[in-house]
Amino acid sequence: MPDTTSPQTTAPGATYEPTGRTVPTRSRERAAYDRETVHAILDEAYVCHLGFVRDGAPVVLPTLFGRVGDRLYVHGSTGSRPLREAGRTDPGLPVCLTVTHVDGLVLARSAFHHSINYRSVVVHGVAREVTDPAERRLALDAIVDQVVPGRSADARPADAKELAATAVIRLDLREVSAKIRTGGPNDEDRDLALPHWAGVVPLARGYAAPIPAEDLDPAVTVPDYITAL
Amino acid sequence: MPDTTSPQTTAPGATYEPTGRTVPTRSRERAAYDRETVHAILDEAYVCHLGFVRDGAPVVLPTLFGRVGDRLYVHGSTGSRPLREAGRTDPGLPVCLTVTHVDGLVLARSAFHHSINYRSVVVHGVAREVTDPAERRLALDAIVDQVVPGRSADARPADAKELAATAVIRLDLREVSAKIRTGGPNDEDRDLALPHWAGVVPLARGYAAPIPAEDLDPAVTVPDYITAL
Repeated sequence: MPDTTSPQTTAPGATYEPTGRTVPTRSRERAAYDRETVHAILDEAYVCHLGFVRDGAPVVLPTLFGRVGDRLYVHGSTGSRPLREAGRTDPGLPVCLTVTHVDGLVLARSAFHHSINYRSVVVHGVAREVTDPAERRLALDAIVDQVVPGRSADARPADAKELAATAVIRLDLREVSAKIRTGGPNDEDRDLALPHWAGVVPLARGYAAPIPAEDLDPAVTVPDYITAL
Repeated sequence: MPDTTSPQTTAPGATYEPTGRTVPTRSRERAAYDRETVHAILDEAYVCHLGFVRDGAPVVLPTLFGRVGDRLYVHGSTGSRPLREAGRTDPGLPVCLTVTHVDGLVLARSAFHHSINYRSVVVHGVAREVTDPAERRLALDAIVDQVVPGRSADARPADAKELAATAVIRLDLREVSAKIRTGGPNDEDRDLALPHWAGVVPLARGYAAPIPAEDLDPAVTVPDYITAL
């Protein structure tokens, strides 16, 4: 089994080990554990949904994140509740981090077989506060680059005051799975002759023209890494 | 305070009562509690992220859902773990259901002020299994119509066997809030003259041409409610 705790030892093509929590009870053929698939789904997302338990009840919040090898990072204000808890609790805060892309609407002749085509990743683990200054910098760059790849090199890095106001937590990619549905509807044979349209309506992310900040110097042009989107 | 448990009594323009769980610790000006805003964000989504607690740890899964007035419905196989638990537990399963739309990438001169424009809704509550046959039908129609409005009237309804295989849970919209970020970057005055491009890259959902099922009778044309997307 590969060492999933260190980004340096990532072997391309390697897979994450399935566990009781990452093997779905249904549609097991949709599950995937290979690193390449998992990373690609994560890297295409702008937000994840971070779940944790507070006072015995679940909380799910959307948040930015970044990936460095086999580590995910989430940041926030030092006043943010889950981040405070991750720093206070030993060994950390149990979390579930989920990313989902909706790729298509699947219309079947029967209501029962309606579905969506999607790609999702679910990560289970314990989030720990990152205190090492170098790792914090790496994490913050990764979070900016998750929004726009290459952007962290073209922005003012956080200063001491901003760093002091920012908490960073890390979640290792270890207990993780992807789930993917593709293709058309799975109607029953007896329904095929029904008069209802059946098929897939594909969805895609669209980008509109960048809107410069009102106070932007007109001499500053849109950089290539934005046009590339 | 309006009766939020019955869809029939929904008063347009009414608001949900803020609670300790729905007032954010930060960026309170982004929070909204009015029914119209909350419903609009929910109705535009194809999936929600449903969080619950299993063996003391959080689990967050993407799933289809539907809304009828002030009630949300989630369905799944009767073999699905959270749905089984909602039916087994009294008074139900504590959940957090979250929906997020990413509307734009916000690029600031400083790494610290990078953000996204988004609209999210977070619902806290206890999910209960729905056993009333009429309410189950209503819920299943709402879930199909969430994928494509109007579709439930143009599909074969679930038969007895399919209904028996489907569990439906209900979550009342009571403890719920929206959170919305719009507009450009909030750079520090001292950063305005930096040479980095700043502004917003708007995102939008795009639909591609519908792909008919391979076994679809060519005489069945694409209905208007799909073209309308």
